[in-house]
Amino acid sequence: MKEIVILGSTGSIGRQALDVIRRFPDKMRVAGLAAGSNWPLMAEQIREFRPRVVALAREEAARELAQNLPPEELPDIFWGPGSLVTVATAVDSGVVLNALTGTVGLGPTVAALEKGLDIALANKETLVAAGELVMKLAREKGARILPVDSEHSAIWQCLAGQPQNRVGKIILTASGGPFRKEPADLSRVTVDEALAHPNWRMGKKITIDSATLMNKGLEVLEAHWLFAVDYDQIEVVVHPQSIIHSMVEFVDGSVIAQLGLPDMRLPIQYALSYPDRWPSELPRVDWFALGELTFEPPDTKRFPCLALAYAAGRTGGTMPAVLNAANEIAVDAFLAGEIDFTAIPRLVAGVMEEHAVVYEPTLEEILAADQWARGAAREKARR
Amino acid sequence: MKEIVILGSTGSIGRQALDVIRRFPDKMRVAGLAAGSNWPLMAEQIREFRPRVVALAREEAARELAQNLPPEELPDIFWGPGSLVTVATAVDSGVVLNALTGTVGLGPTVAALEKGLDIALANKETLVAAGELVMKLAREKGARILPVDSEHSAIWQCLAGQPQNRVGKIILTASGGPFRKEPADLSRVTVDEALAHPNWRMGKKITIDSATLMNKGLEVLEAHWLFAVDYDQIEVVVHPQSIIHSMVEFVDGSVIAQLGLPDMRLPIQYALSYPDRWPSELPRVDWFALGELTFEPPDTKRFPCLALAYAAGRTGGTMPAVLNAANEIAVDAFLAGEIDFTAIPRLVAGVMEEHAVVYEPTLEEILAADQWARGAAREKARR
Repeated sequence: MKEIVILGSTGSIGRQALDVIRRFPDKMRVAGLAAGSNWPLMAEQIREFRPRVVALAREEAARELAQNLPPEELPDIFWGPGSLVTVATAVDSGVVLNALTGTVGLGPTVAALEKGLDIALANKETLVAAGELVMKLAREKGARILPVDSEHSAIWQCLAGQPQNRVGKIILTASGGPFRKEPADLSRVTVDEALAHPNWRMGKKITIDSATLMNKGLEVLEAHWLFAVDYDQIEVVVHPQSIIHSMVEFVDGSVIAQLGLPDMRLPIQYALSYPDRWPSELPRVDWFALGELTFEPPDTKRFPCLALAYAAGRTGGTMPAVLNAANEIAVDAFLAGEIDFTAIPRLVAGVMEEHAVVYEPTLEEILAADQWARGAAREKARR
Repeated sequence: MKEIVILGSTGSIGRQALDVIRRFPDKMRVAGLAAGSNWPLMAEQIREFRPRVVALAREEAARELAQNLPPEELPDIFWGPGSLVTVATAVDSGVVLNALTGTVGLGPTVAALEKGLDIALANKETLVAAGELVMKLAREKGARILPVDSEHSAIWQCLAGQPQNRVGKIILTASGGPFRKEPADLSRVTVDEALAHPNWRMGKKITIDSATLMNKGLEVLEAHWLFAVDYDQIEVVVHPQSIIHSMVEFVDGSVIAQLGLPDMRLPIQYALSYPDRWPSELPRVDWFALGELTFEPPDTKRFPCLALAYAAGRTGGTMPAVLNAANEIAVDAFLAGEIDFTAIPRLVAGVMEEHAVVYEPTLEEILAADQWARGAAREKARR
């Protein structure tokens, strides 16, 4: 029986992960859950999955949770900044699914790896901001980073059983988002238009990142660290149908691809079942109803965020953390109606230009760069 | 240094295999070559690759070969029915590439497997006619069957590193051949039209088989034996662009595919380099020049050969050998202008109907069924 901890259990990935776990009661059990403030949903999850330990961000929510559960169903409840680490390290083996959004995901990843626990990673910031440090730690502790993102899961599946050091390039597919072709003037798109992703239902932040292609840029940074490939070996290909989730071209010219319907439960399940695969009732690709699969180059003039991410990755040090933090603030400002859509990459680029990079940073230096970038970005958003 | 024997060295696959071997002089050397009657090309191959032993089908061609090589460049030359086995077993380790066409390929495969040699298999008849026997022998002797056909190579690559017994289904892609949509009346197509394959340059027999879809049917039978899957688990999908060479859907719904340009040198190289992959200069897929990838169901009314192959496979015993032998005669008769294109499946079906199946046949019983089917097919072709 595999013990699973879910950080971010009330979010989109967390809920889908519980949907997967629900189908395999003989293979997995939930040991811990952590979420932000949604205590009513957390209460439901506790009643169904009976974790030993849970965490909420604030004391108030934790109190509400405790008062709304019968005493005999009460797990250990933690709150506050350290509570994520408490839950992330509450098991001795098994898998910690990190589905937190933002830099807050970094600390619990590091704590779980320090304990040698495998991480099913859906939190982008872990590798974007601290890839070097996190991968080194995982190697030292013999812990595995199991990607949950559909693209990285695809690449991971394509690399299974293949000889080492024989990757020619990684081909990261991108849907292109809702503004792939139109409107011509992106400065006038509304928040609602940007939130209408053509293929995937996801949280707000990642949906805006998909519309700017920053999401793909962050995935390039993650792929660099997860699969130990140079940035020159990572190519982004726009594939609007989102059926091919990514590909690997090997040195002999052979290409292996992973395909499936756009459903996050599949990569989540694979991360939890790995190295096995478990039968699922998830909908299958219907080849004859698919229509056509197409490919086109990304328009980096229209979507400068992708080029910014490559630039941040090639610069290295604290620059990717700064890119990520500035982007988080820029997206918040766009969602709040404070800046227009095209201001997102301008703002990120402006913050990157002002940053004094620290190379081979410690976790503290990364978090400091992150904080600095948030401040600088907020200032620019206010102007 | 890997020692390679090539049976069928002057044919299409054999020549391409030598083109691959030529690029890796530090990894492979040619130990033996066998061909039919093309002694001038064999002489060139001997001068370049210096095999220790060669075979030609007839004494006359062997004599010509001997007379046209300088004495210091003469390998051991064999001819006649036993010579293929002599060359196939002329090494103690390495790989025997069986690129013979027809049932003649069966004997040397069995002889090489008996010696525990790995077989890179391009000869369809080996598994179509004697799959059960050959796979059992390979298991007993610890020898590997390395598929060379682009579809089976694709499936093999997709299965690498995946958990055992987790295949949902194998999706065998088919170009659909030159007559996928037209003409409406297939009885009037000419030999030249049937030989004009849209994507692949191959020998005549296999090109006609591609036009009737019998080629795909034979591949279904091979896949059944190579990958130990039921016929219900093998689905043929028409994919006219021949970029996805085949796919595997696992029990969790994830699909792994192998893609590449239609170039046989890639699967040949993979079979020879396996489990490694070696860098190659073969042309790469250009995603932005590809156009679209499409999928459609095969039209089994228009192409009855595919259904005949499934039926032969499900019947088992000697029936697949009979299907294959009758088809060989029918294709010869079509190429000779004796029967029309639509008579090929009619003739094969007629011979199958008359066959008294032998179950769990010996090699002799298989060869006897093959001979019987050829006679029965010739008689029908003459009517």
